[in-house]
Amino acid sequence: MYRIGVDLGGTNIAVGLVNDSYEIVAQISVPTNALQAVEGVVAGIGNAIESVLEKGGLTGSDCIAIGVGAPGICDTELGIVSRSYSLSWNNVPLAAMLEERFHLPVHINNDANCAALAEVKAGIAKGYKNVVLVTLGTGIGSGIVINGSIYSGYLGSGAEMGHMLLDYGGEQCSCGRKGCWDAYASSTALVVQAKKAAFSRPESKLNTLSQITGQSVFEAADQGDVTAMAVINKYCEYLALGVSNIINVLAPEMILIGGGVSHQGERILEPVRKYARENCFDKREEAMPFIKIASMGTEAGIIGAAVL
Amino acid sequence: MYRIGVDLGGTNIAVGLVNDSYEIVAQISVPTNALQAVEGVVAGIGNAIESVLEKGGLTGSDCIAIGVGAPGICDTELGIVSRSYSLSWNNVPLAAMLEERFHLPVHINNDANCAALAEVKAGIAKGYKNVVLVTLGTGIGSGIVINGSIYSGYLGSGAEMGHMLLDYGGEQCSCGRKGCWDAYASSTALVVQAKKAAFSRPESKLNTLSQITGQSVFEAADQGDVTAMAVINKYCEYLALGVSNIINVLAPEMILIGGGVSHQGERILEPVRKYARENCFDKREEAMPFIKIASMGTEAGIIGAAVL
Repeated sequence: MYRIGVDLGGTNIAVGLVNDSYEIVAQISVPTNALQAVEGVVAGIGNAIESVLEKGGLTGSDCIAIGVGAPGICDTELGIVSRSYSLSWNNVPLAAMLEERFHLPVHINNDANCAALAEVKAGIAKGYKNVVLVTLGTGIGSGIVINGSIYSGYLGSGAEMGHMLLDYGGEQCSCGRKGCWDAYASSTALVVQAKKAAFSRPESKLNTLSQITGQSVFEAADQGDVTAMAVINKYCEYLALGVSNIINVLAPEMILIGGGVSHQGERILEPVRKYARENCFDKREEAMPFIKIASMGTEAGIIGAAVL
Repeated sequence: MYRIGVDLGGTNIAVGLVNDSYEIVAQISVPTNALQAVEGVVAGIGNAIESVLEKGGLTGSDCIAIGVGAPGICDTELGIVSRSYSLSWNNVPLAAMLEERFHLPVHINNDANCAALAEVKAGIAKGYKNVVLVTLGTGIGSGIVINGSIYSGYLGSGAEMGHMLLDYGGEQCSCGRKGCWDAYASSTALVVQAKKAAFSRPESKLNTLSQITGQSVFEAADQGDVTAMAVINKYCEYLALGVSNIINVLAPEMILIGGGVSHQGERILEPVRKYARENCFDKREEAMPFIKIASMGTEAGIIGAAVL
């Protein structure tokens, strides 16, 4: 049998058919057009599901369930997207709307939670019970798996690691508060840090770049630009501060880093591990979780949703 | 049947016989004498267990298990106290040592975890699945219950909420790092904050106290001392910073505050709830966890250990 996984994003809707081995056998992606009414977006999801079934040569009767990873806070019991800033949704009964069309059980959860679950079911965290996934993008997303299942807290309101305060009164965060991890270790924050540094160091190569991006700051550091190197070192420390909080609170067996910045691999992992070993409360080497790069890319959202 | 619960502290060992209704039917407390060798402390626990059995008119065969709440990091699977600063213990196979003497299964866990479990089994959090207990004492202790069971992370190294960083580079914490919650919201931290404020405000009533304690700062504030009032207000904000991190990360259904400072009740809860409502990522009123004072005193450690 197959499961249908929907990765609902603010920009694109990716839908895949997933088999019992957690492989995607057919996949499509269509624009979300998030500015239209809720009904329009949900109709778009439905049409994409029908398209991918056709592409895979299957029908709804070959499938046992639909799972949707949504960008926001989800009430998983009621199947409601409670709040989504990127979709401008409030209390959308997404599961019921899709069940009506497809007559299949529909499960929904937060997209980062789905990605974490995918890593545990079919990725680098396979076989681990307690895992936290952190994605470094425009903001910091996170998903928690405890005892092999998604943990999203009361009414889906937890697993917002990006909004751990870690510098009281510090940088302005998008959530309204000052000092959250998101304002220090998202890729957006890295770009802000690089722009500030470039402004105060006219001699830096950063000032010759057509555009400062997370990627280009790392490249400038690779070329020996001392300003860029200092920015990267500090950024890795900020990243490590939040990772060490996760260890002190949850002590998962594995912490995975995903999102754009994670393409830097060991370059960011090595200083994070060093900080964690030196600063976490429990300094036993054997208690230190594995800190690794997430193994699945865009397919994590689809597979994670499918196995909800 | 009965269970034997041991609350092993750095100062005292409290032992109780707990019935199936989670009531303590007999209880004793003896000094730990933590400076003696491990074997001496463990013999003291054993003697206390025999004394409480005698007091309750029972024998080991009336009991199904022994549980011990220990002040430190415990490997619950192997029954080992991995690290305890207050006992100066490293890798003590406590469960095996007690099993040898009593021929009963022995379970061990961290003392704050035991207290959290007791609240869920028999206290104010009865019936709730996901609960965090925070104790404000010399340091900040914490216990996490997820899905009705203690969650202590890999090799027991989690649930150290007091060592969430929340003011990067800030006050010195006992763990060696600067800026942990412990250095801001423990009762020790409150006293430090009051002493600093008193020094800079010679007119404050705080300077007339024979001793500045957590309790006496609150009393001075009650008597209208503006310096003490400012200290208390700031302290409650510090308390709220960590509580809001717990909500953003774990979103438990209930957060309980215990320990000495918790005797102030609504006085501290009201500002903490206000801060959390205004600053947590999920601002839905219905998603806000209950924030309450822990309902059980010293008996929580015994009952929680007994039901391990």
